[in-house]
Amino acid sequence: MTTTRSSRSPLTRRHFLGHLGAIGGSSLVMSALSSWDLMAAEAGKRPELSGRPSKAKVLVLGAGLSGLALSYELSKLGYDYQILEARDRVGGLVWTIRGGATHTEIGGERQTCKFDEGQYVNAGPWRIPYSHTGILGYCRELGVPMEMFVNEAENSYFYYEGAEAGSLAAKRVRLREIKADIFGQVNELLVKAIDQHALDLPMTAEDQEQLVRFLSNHGYLDLKDHRYKAFVDRGPGDPYKLSALLGAGFGNRLRSVPQAEGTQAGTMFQPVGGMDQIPKAFARALGPNRITHNAEVQTIRQDDHTATVVYRDTKSGKTQTVTADYVVICLPMSILAGIDCQLSPETMAEVRGTRVSNSAKVGLAMKRRFWEEDDEIFGGHLYSNLPIGEFSYPSTGYFSRKGVLLGLYANGPVGDLMNKSVAERVEHVLLHSSKVHPQIRREFESAYGVWWQKVEYSRGGYASGPPARRALLSKMENRLLIGSAVTAPYSQPDWQEGAIAAAWQALTSLHQRAMSA
Amino acid sequence: MTTTRSSRSPLTRRHFLGHLGAIGGSSLVMSALSSWDLMAAEAGKRPELSGRPSKAKVLVLGAGLSGLALSYELSKLGYDYQILEARDRVGGLVWTIRGGATHTEIGGERQTCKFDEGQYVNAGPWRIPYSHTGILGYCRELGVPMEMFVNEAENSYFYYEGAEAGSLAAKRVRLREIKADIFGQVNELLVKAIDQHALDLPMTAEDQEQLVRFLSNHGYLDLKDHRYKAFVDRGPGDPYKLSALLGAGFGNRLRSVPQAEGTQAGTMFQPVGGMDQIPKAFARALGPNRITHNAEVQTIRQDDHTATVVYRDTKSGKTQTVTADYVVICLPMSILAGIDCQLSPETMAEVRGTRVSNSAKVGLAMKRRFWEEDDEIFGGHLYSNLPIGEFSYPSTGYFSRKGVLLGLYANGPVGDLMNKSVAERVEHVLLHSSKVHPQIRREFESAYGVWWQKVEYSRGGYASGPPARRALLSKMENRLLIGSAVTAPYSQPDWQEGAIAAAWQALTSLHQRAMSA
Repeated sequence: MTTTRSSRSPLTRRHFLGHLGAIGGSSLVMSALSSWDLMAAEAGKRPELSGRPSKAKVLVLGAGLSGLALSYELSKLGYDYQILEARDRVGGLVWTIRGGATHTEIGGERQTCKFDEGQYVNAGPWRIPYSHTGILGYCRELGVPMEMFVNEAENSYFYYEGAEAGSLAAKRVRLREIKADIFGQVNELLVKAIDQHALDLPMTAEDQEQLVRFLSNHGYLDLKDHRYKAFVDRGPGDPYKLSALLGAGFGNRLRSVPQAEGTQAGTMFQPVGGMDQIPKAFARALGPNRITHNAEVQTIRQDDHTATVVYRDTKSGKTQTVTADYVVICLPMSILAGIDCQLSPETMAEVRGTRVSNSAKVGLAMKRRFWEEDDEIFGGHLYSNLPIGEFSYPSTGYFSRKGVLLGLYANGPVGDLMNKSVAERVEHVLLHSSKVHPQIRREFESAYGVWWQKVEYSRGGYASGPPARRALLSKMENRLLIGSAVTAPYSQPDWQEGAIAAAWQALTSLHQRAMSA
Repeated sequence: MTTTRSSRSPLTRRHFLGHLGAIGGSSLVMSALSSWDLMAAEAGKRPELSGRPSKAKVLVLGAGLSGLALSYELSKLGYDYQILEARDRVGGLVWTIRGGATHTEIGGERQTCKFDEGQYVNAGPWRIPYSHTGILGYCRELGVPMEMFVNEAENSYFYYEGAEAGSLAAKRVRLREIKADIFGQVNELLVKAIDQHALDLPMTAEDQEQLVRFLSNHGYLDLKDHRYKAFVDRGPGDPYKLSALLGAGFGNRLRSVPQAEGTQAGTMFQPVGGMDQIPKAFARALGPNRITHNAEVQTIRQDDHTATVVYRDTKSGKTQTVTADYVVICLPMSILAGIDCQLSPETMAEVRGTRVSNSAKVGLAMKRRFWEEDDEIFGGHLYSNLPIGEFSYPSTGYFSRKGVLLGLYANGPVGDLMNKSVAERVEHVLLHSSKVHPQIRREFESAYGVWWQKVEYSRGGYASGPPARRALLSKMENRLLIGSAVTAPYSQPDWQEGAIAAAWQALTSLHQRAMSA
């Protein structure tokens, strides 16, 4: 395995992290820095509301996750509601790509998915930490079958290019090897110090003996000489040097315990058969007549008596006007920004000022699950600084014949990749990923790429903003209210849990208003 | 959480391990001792055979996993074969208990399973390490859908009774807490020694700085004072003392990397819907007319020209005689020992001398998945020294309504439990498991217990023996050959992989003999 990039000028650590951040989005920076503790769960509990409002017709704009969850709760409270959705599907960013899926990029190319029956890739959200009890509660309630999402696989490769990775640059090193060699050598150091009485340990001799025994077992040290040697569970090959492993930055991912949530969470889930099983289950629960599809919202107005929405039926081309007591806007900020909307100018300025991520995903359909058959990798990710962001293996269909790899997942620009043809983008992914998995070229069948900034009715991935902006956006303005994920009283609106938390917040505000009307 | 056993006389460590071994079988001793490296994979590769024998009628006795795999390979090679199976189902020890399952214990009670539709427990094998490529290869080939078996869950409880566990006796301590607190304190010790230049480290100052940074990140140490404090990912509560954690023996399960196989393997699988999906898939592949059910073998004879088997049809009560060129015996040794069989007296002496395990499992159907809802445990095991062996949570059906706990899995006697009534045995399991999960009493719905020594046509669990015995048992004697798992050229005949390896070995011997006939 060689690389043409090792001759480039050395990257400083700051550049290195910046580089990861640019291409990999928050996830890789989170793992490289030590800010995981910022991401504690704040989702809260589902509001317990009661009372049936007398005047209560609600229009929900957008059948993404927040709009669906809000509508589901509105139906429980006895509201008369209707959802307007521009697409012919529900889910918004929750989009599972299967054979036959198609979209035309804004100002660009049309793709049609050629995956085999049963094969898919989640173009939007793809994993749910167990601590996200809001969305998981709905999965239970709606009967969505769930399976484990493998967020860390022992046999995963690390592959770092560039001088920063030192002697391990452009080498495939397995997580299993990294753990074994780091702890083997660290434990050896500590045991040696204890054996030589170099440490002033605050423990009895018996405790020390116990500690040495633990360190030896844990680090697979030789029980006689307390030295670390290669052993069967590590896998074949000689150990790597501790300084080389730490110098390459491989140790940055190792934590004594995984996060309860976030991208390093240990226990995560996904719906069996694709993430869109969740919005589909919501839609089934709402019944057949609550969602008006192909309804492209054009104006949102309100007065003292009513709220009015004009939309264009994209099938017939005709405009329609609907009125209601309240309108909850569950649209992306990037879409709301372009709608003639009677929210206050201050709020609309915040809407327009909201940053949306430049998220992209590419699914690569493979003829053969070579990562399982040849590399013994079952789910999990490749850890690399290649310009493909996250590269991941499917946590489903183990030991079956075919599979779809996630070839690229980035939340920021990857050079000028987005402006190239789809074929060139796929070639970029194949070029870099085949450095780690040379089989990719031979087993490649077809690809499907989603650059959310180029997807109509989304025009971007997840939105985020400071708490003050979120608070402003979530304020009810007479008959209008925003319920999109960005308003979530939650530190991570880029997770589905954020959409649920936003829906609950909007529900509470709306119900309060309606009950006092 | 209190225990009535803490007043008992203290156990020595040897007694403690012996105690674990007696009730928990090999798995718990393996985890407590450091003999995991004895268990390297030896399954080998599927034999590549060719040639079509002219005279080749084969009788296979037993439709357990070895008999099925052997027959499947025989069919590929063009043999004329027939399976005789005493039960009305295939799979032998591979038995998945669902609602409606029933059996009458030898000299004892009849049980009928009352689990809800879709609920099950695997009474025999239940997990497949990814290194068991023999059986997993068949799963791929036969299209058996597979899912992850969670063999280690971060939120699992440790619960040790008795003075041996010291200050942590009869306390629920989570694996997550144990890891966080042990590594937090161990890393703190090492960092302090490095900071005070107490260690003569074979590394540069820059390397040392890197090591300190790694240890701090990994152990969640305070970045300023390098002290270990409680942190969010550990979970609530104050840290436990290092000496208390190690003294209780909690550190014994922690290894820098999980095993590639064995009971501490990190990556394991199970068929979706129950382990019996594998024998059922084999049976489907063989077609409808190859297995004669309800055929209880009585005599196995051979001469220079033919082999003859007499069996009793348990439905009609009539005896039948079938002849073939070869007979491959894929029965439990405990059953073969009672059959009038023309293997040599030496071989039959070894058959009778083979030890079979006293394996037992009890499934507990619960109204509610309280371990997920209340305790955030998803799959994995309880680590305890309670007299219930292994106690485990289902690795399937996450976030659904009901579930079946594995309330007891032992491979040796648990006191005189086996001789009590089924109701008393279930009460024993509920009594001990509810010390850890008090919800068990309230949520209990029904139980089903399988004590394999009391199951007709099995009369025990897995068999094992020294290599010399296995070699003798696997020797073809004219027209007769044993193909049961115990003959596997493999260190663990107690795994399904052993049955596959035995089938391959028998196939090779038989084919050689048939081709030279």
